[in-house]
Amino acid sequence: MENFQKIMSFVKEVDRLKTVERQCQIMNGGRRENSAEHSWHFALTAWLLGGYAHRDLNMERVVKMALIHDLVEIDAGDTFVYDHQAREEKKATEEAAAHRLFALLPADLEREFWELWREYEDQYTDEARFAQAIDRLLPILCNTETEGSAWRRHGISRRQVDRRNGPCWAEARCLEDYVTSILDEAVARGHLTE
Amino acid sequence: MENFQKIMSFVKEVDRLKTVERQCQIMNGGRRENSAEHSWHFALTAWLLGGYAHRDLNMERVVKMALIHDLVEIDAGDTFVYDHQAREEKKATEEAAAHRLFALLPADLEREFWELWREYEDQYTDEARFAQAIDRLLPILCNTETEGSAWRRHGISRRQVDRRNGPCWAEARCLEDYVTSILDEAVARGHLTE
Repeated sequence: MENFQKIMSFVKEVDRLKTVERQCQIMNGGRRENSAEHSWHFALTAWLLGGYAHRDLNMERVVKMALIHDLVEIDAGDTFVYDHQAREEKKATEEAAAHRLFALLPADLEREFWELWREYEDQYTDEARFAQAIDRLLPILCNTETEGSAWRRHGISRRQVDRRNGPCWAEARCLEDYVTSILDEAVARGHLTE
Repeated sequence: MENFQKIMSFVKEVDRLKTVERQCQIMNGGRRENSAEHSWHFALTAWLLGGYAHRDLNMERVVKMALIHDLVEIDAGDTFVYDHQAREEKKATEEAAAHRLFALLPADLEREFWELWREYEDQYTDEARFAQAIDRLLPILCNTETEGSAWRRHGISRRQVDRRNGPCWAEARCLEDYVTSILDEAVARGHLTE
């Protein structure tokens, strides 16, 4: 198939990311967030916070990671960040999803998508670690803005939030102070257990 | 307010873009698309099709335009691309929305957002024209993939689609041939009137 047609097939295929439901709610609390709108929010927030990274990052790369990091969920579905077992079990499914989806692209883009996705998954660059910090920040914000909706539904504690996300803030220290303050407030308001 | 806090307020405010409904449906046809997930799809598609632009473009700029082009809809709502009167009437509301929203940002980002938004609205660069072509392509795809759902609801004809969008394809000629072929098919299938 001609490369342009391949891209158009891919563009249609990935529309399905709009139907992948995440655990957290959008901030007005009306419904659960989907992975496509989350990816938009992630890309925009990463761009805005780029100046707060510890090092000088290639922000174009960070934004691209944000745009594609969840595509594999089209086949594998979303996995709750606090569900360790499901995350381990899903690795093979996500890998298969990447194979299926990225193969729809022309060879040069297929290679670029693999590189970006692998970099993000394996977290071996400053860009990937900074991106992950933003990806972890956003559902925390969705929770603090909706009275801890997903935390309460799943019985998540402050201790779990800290243990799971704490290491991420090393890439942007301002996030650590900020997240600490909003988690303190969530606990004080009874939206998150100690 | 400190710049970091300003950014976080903005990040929370723009979450509302997820609640702005567009006229077209997502491609699986289950519901109408919102402007946040559209912005994600737009940014990703622009990146993928960058190689098909007539000229060498600053694609980082195109992707940024995609991420922010619809933010003013948080206050102004979405305007149907074929509703000329509403589009004219909404200009002042959108301008006011940009003033309110971008003022939430630190000064350097506020300036960057104004530049990008104005460039996109006034279409005075190759990047803005290429971006608009993608922004017009996607709802056409949403329609061809959902039996012309928004076209049929609003009684839109092939003539209107061509007149409104035709000039956009000049920035990426491959789009013209492709759109012509999928519109021909939509007419043949009765999803779009002549």
